[in-house]
Amino acid sequence: MPFDDKKGLLIALEQAKQSYSQGGIPIGSCIISPDGKVLGRGHNERIQKGSAILHGEMSALEDAGRLPGKTYKNCTIYTTLSPCNMCTGAILLYGIKRVVMGENVNFQGAEALLKANGVEVINMDDEGCKEIMSKFIKERSTDWNEDIGE
Amino acid sequence: MPFDDKKGLLIALEQAKQSYSQGGIPIGSCIISPDGKVLGRGHNERIQKGSAILHGEMSALEDAGRLPGKTYKNCTIYTTLSPCNMCTGAILLYGIKRVVMGENVNFQGAEALLKANGVEVINMDDEGCKEIMSKFIKERSTDWNEDIGE
Repeated sequence: MPFDDKKGLLIALEQAKQSYSQGGIPIGSCIISPDGKVLGRGHNERIQKGSAILHGEMSALEDAGRLPGKTYKNCTIYTTLSPCNMCTGAILLYGIKRVVMGENVNFQGAEALLKANGVEVINMDDEGCKEIMSKFIKERSTDWNEDIGE
Repeated sequence: MPFDDKKGLLIALEQAKQSYSQGGIPIGSCIISPDGKVLGRGHNERIQKGSAILHGEMSALEDAGRLPGKTYKNCTIYTTLSPCNMCTGAILLYGIKRVVMGENVNFQGAEALLKANGVEVINMDDEGCKEIMSKFIKERSTDWNEDIGE
């Protein structure tokens, strides 16, 4: 039985909630292998670590650590929000072929570029993901704009 | 007088040499503001920190820290090697409009994507950058392939 995408997204959302509870940007992510093993998980660390590069997906990749290129190829990356250009580029670099996102209402990233490169992109349109992100954007628009380079 | 690109590339190459001397992948980068201030510099940290995301350009962005989006827009990013998909994505995220690279003989990244997004891309075809990178690839092909997801 293939790994349940709802379970993967829930792990990402737990990371987003953890970040929000720390005063950070509530975007979480995880990378899951075909046999259901969580290779890496993480959340946005802009506020917590003063980081310009630790978006949710980047944190999950960093948490997974050094891996041979072939390990990524059959994995799925889960993220609570549509991946920005940077995270999309990282997904393309490592050849991850499947992206499951929580939503793209609060922000739409480079989904077209992913698809143009043969990546399967699934939008779960998840209420929990939408709610926490829209709450944060209302509360902290300056921090959010900084995170997307605006 | 505009900032001298040769000086910018030299700072990036110094970073690459520093990484090589630490046993790391010799790719360096820096971000320089229009008035010639080095906002951030760094080098690949795959070997040194076991990092999957700290490519040269990413390290320079991380070293620059949290900045308002507008700060990046008139900067130049210097890198000893053509930027991969991940670093290209980060450049697009932050709206850096000028990329000066040392070379693209040892690796050609997503230059077409940068140009398609209106980024000025300059290739210095620098002997020093080519030499250190080709030496590393010959010596450590497995580490190099891992760094580009192969």
